[in-house]
Amino acid sequence: MTQFGPYLTVNDAGRLEIEGLSVVDLAEEYGTPLFVISENTIRTRIRRMQKAFADHYPNEMIVCVGMKANWGLALRRVVVQEGAGGDAFGMGELTVAMLAGSDPRKIVLNGANKAEEALRGAIDMGVMIQVDHEDELEAVERLAGEMGKTARVALRIRLPLDAIEEAVYVDPRYPEGISPTYWERTFKFGLDPESYFAEVEEALAMKSISLEGVMYHGGIPRRAGYYREETEELVDMIGEIKKRYGWTPRYVNIGGGFVPERVGHDLPPSIEDYAKAIGEAIVSKCAEHDLPVPVLLAEPGRYCVDAAGIWVVRVGSLKDDRSLANKKWVYVDGNTNEMGDPFDPYNRIHHVVIANDCGRVGGEVVDIAGQTCNAADVLVKERELPPMGIGDYLAFLDVGAYNEGFACQSNAIPRSATVMVCDGRSAVVRRRETVADVLSRESVPSWLMA
Amino acid sequence: MTQFGPYLTVNDAGRLEIEGLSVVDLAEEYGTPLFVISENTIRTRIRRMQKAFADHYPNEMIVCVGMKANWGLALRRVVVQEGAGGDAFGMGELTVAMLAGSDPRKIVLNGANKAEEALRGAIDMGVMIQVDHEDELEAVERLAGEMGKTARVALRIRLPLDAIEEAVYVDPRYPEGISPTYWERTFKFGLDPESYFAEVEEALAMKSISLEGVMYHGGIPRRAGYYREETEELVDMIGEIKKRYGWTPRYVNIGGGFVPERVGHDLPPSIEDYAKAIGEAIVSKCAEHDLPVPVLLAEPGRYCVDAAGIWVVRVGSLKDDRSLANKKWVYVDGNTNEMGDPFDPYNRIHHVVIANDCGRVGGEVVDIAGQTCNAADVLVKERELPPMGIGDYLAFLDVGAYNEGFACQSNAIPRSATVMVCDGRSAVVRRRETVADVLSRESVPSWLMA
Repeated sequence: MTQFGPYLTVNDAGRLEIEGLSVVDLAEEYGTPLFVISENTIRTRIRRMQKAFADHYPNEMIVCVGMKANWGLALRRVVVQEGAGGDAFGMGELTVAMLAGSDPRKIVLNGANKAEEALRGAIDMGVMIQVDHEDELEAVERLAGEMGKTARVALRIRLPLDAIEEAVYVDPRYPEGISPTYWERTFKFGLDPESYFAEVEEALAMKSISLEGVMYHGGIPRRAGYYREETEELVDMIGEIKKRYGWTPRYVNIGGGFVPERVGHDLPPSIEDYAKAIGEAIVSKCAEHDLPVPVLLAEPGRYCVDAAGIWVVRVGSLKDDRSLANKKWVYVDGNTNEMGDPFDPYNRIHHVVIANDCGRVGGEVVDIAGQTCNAADVLVKERELPPMGIGDYLAFLDVGAYNEGFACQSNAIPRSATVMVCDGRSAVVRRRETVADVLSRESVPSWLMA
Repeated sequence: MTQFGPYLTVNDAGRLEIEGLSVVDLAEEYGTPLFVISENTIRTRIRRMQKAFADHYPNEMIVCVGMKANWGLALRRVVVQEGAGGDAFGMGELTVAMLAGSDPRKIVLNGANKAEEALRGAIDMGVMIQVDHEDELEAVERLAGEMGKTARVALRIRLPLDAIEEAVYVDPRYPEGISPTYWERTFKFGLDPESYFAEVEEALAMKSISLEGVMYHGGIPRRAGYYREETEELVDMIGEIKKRYGWTPRYVNIGGGFVPERVGHDLPPSIEDYAKAIGEAIVSKCAEHDLPVPVLLAEPGRYCVDAAGIWVVRVGSLKDDRSLANKKWVYVDGNTNEMGDPFDPYNRIHHVVIANDCGRVGGEVVDIAGQTCNAADVLVKERELPPMGIGDYLAFLDVGAYNEGFACQSNAIPRSATVMVCDGRSAVVRRRETVADVLSRESVPSWLMA
């Protein structure tokens, strides 16, 4: 039996199944375009990450599944049932975390310019605020004081990463290479080390702040494979803080940037590789600096949810032009409004399966295009695929991260429904958008009634 | 008095005014981030284009303001009052056109894979369907037949543009240059000339289709300045159709791609330049081929609406890092979720004005960043601006096109309100989104209630 994943298989009739349900049946029952989320894939990914760190890390490790990757309420409910948490930005994501029944100790609030409303929400919930810079630290102290509460705070840092100064990162998104150190040093989040020391000292002196953590996000350096080096530098920094101020963090959050495998692509490091290297680096560096091993938080987003999602569209028409463009277009009923993951380390190259006939043979080079007016609304560009016809259902694999979250409504086109599937059951978890939804905020001034 | 436009001025107190209203007052009344649309700017732009063609074109000319650029209902009401129409994609934009009271003769339906629902809508409304390719022509014939109606049809063409074969287009978005002919020949819309002849013949033989028009969209070739060459080639093609089939189009639609001026940038051709060259090309080529001069349609989007819109954000905090990044960040309460115009010929370089103090002197190089988790959520990168402080209101100019239409809700962040202003009056035309709106489509399956 062909398998695209443990919960994504091909049945004897050559049809794609997800958690034992025919994708064609789902498309016909719920309509297209349609996101389908495999609940067990999410559970499996979270458990695997938890186990990997349990095997290699001697203290508690909390998986904070990055809400930005997919903040769907039902998905967050699954995350909560697995004992995991989330990394929230703003009042919207905090609200979802609360509605899903999250343990506040497993939620963190991120952001570079958090709204007061979100800071108040985090203080009320007891969520650790990952403070970005000095102005924000002062705002948290002021708000917590006004509220008569104590704010749980971690300070976010950028690191110089001197040990990888010369590194160059090349992947399909950055084929000419970028510098992980330049990226880490100049991106918009967190404090430089010099300011960091000053802010630790300030935070420790503040009345309404409980300084509990240190936060560092891997991003490009981690994707590029330097997870041991960055972790060592992070703990060295914590050792220096201890030396200067006698303070040690109870929590250390290493952020995200764990690249997941994806169908049709080379394998990145396994989560076990990450856990082993990071665990060893923290334990040995803590021993060197005489630090207690902290509770570890990590913010995997794509790693936990990308493989759980497929997106199903229907072929509506074909255009073959051998005289001017020398191209064949396959037009589908979805579009790039909903396939716009801006962080995709695979450069939007999604594996595509003909869900009603996975075994179809032969090949032709096609562009798969959507319905918007955007010339760039091409979902697949010049790729050889089996010949397709009107009525075929195409499944795009590994789309559970960042696509729904970044979806727009250009051309006033309503967005897909999302269905969750689990062990042969299915249910809508995000209803299909209507034209009335898209237009629901419009009004006309009285002076234009004439 | 400093002026950024006829309806965008600076008052004696150094504050930015739009249609006689203080932008700071609008920000304080309606909150930030806030889009503000100047009604009279839209009226002025449409009238100027209508006059330019009236001066240079001997038959009727219909301005179909591209709905994709801004489909706001109140904005469309202004367009209708000016005797203009629109170019719609899909049922959402058709619905807005209808609600705004559009004359169906001034609306066209575009798209490469139009949904049956939208085709039926256009047939019912009497809107001209700009058919993209053969499959679609057949679908229109079938649907119109089933409905017992006649569908008004134009066929959309791509042209070889042999006369500009060697041209290279360079602008801030394509600094290394792209080929306008490659772009025109291979983009996803329309028929190649060879297929075009066959489809004209087929359409003329169809029972439920009234073939009325020819459609060609300028796009990059027009932006690159080849509007005379492409127009001549288009009319030569129509002459050839007449010779073969004896048919001439009542309507010719030349699409969009008219670059508007923008504050702080070099001036592109004026709309009068476009109208003169295009008008002369059509008239002389029609004479050469013994064709009647058709009713002309054009689809300006950005030209009519971009300068009408500003976006107002408030500075929330500052971060100065001279040790690691050598950068200063100015954090505002808006973000790139709403400033993502993908077609911007100026490469997202918007002029920024400190609305509460337009005359502030001095300069420092800053990044203006938003609140999302996206490292690329930087609205202005390394630009010298007067020193800014917390509480300043920043106005981004020339944002009326494509930014609201392509806005997403990443990090579950609600979108801005939009206010229309006219001669000292103001009214909300798109209400501010709430967290409840963002979450309104969510549900949880029963099996996750445990």
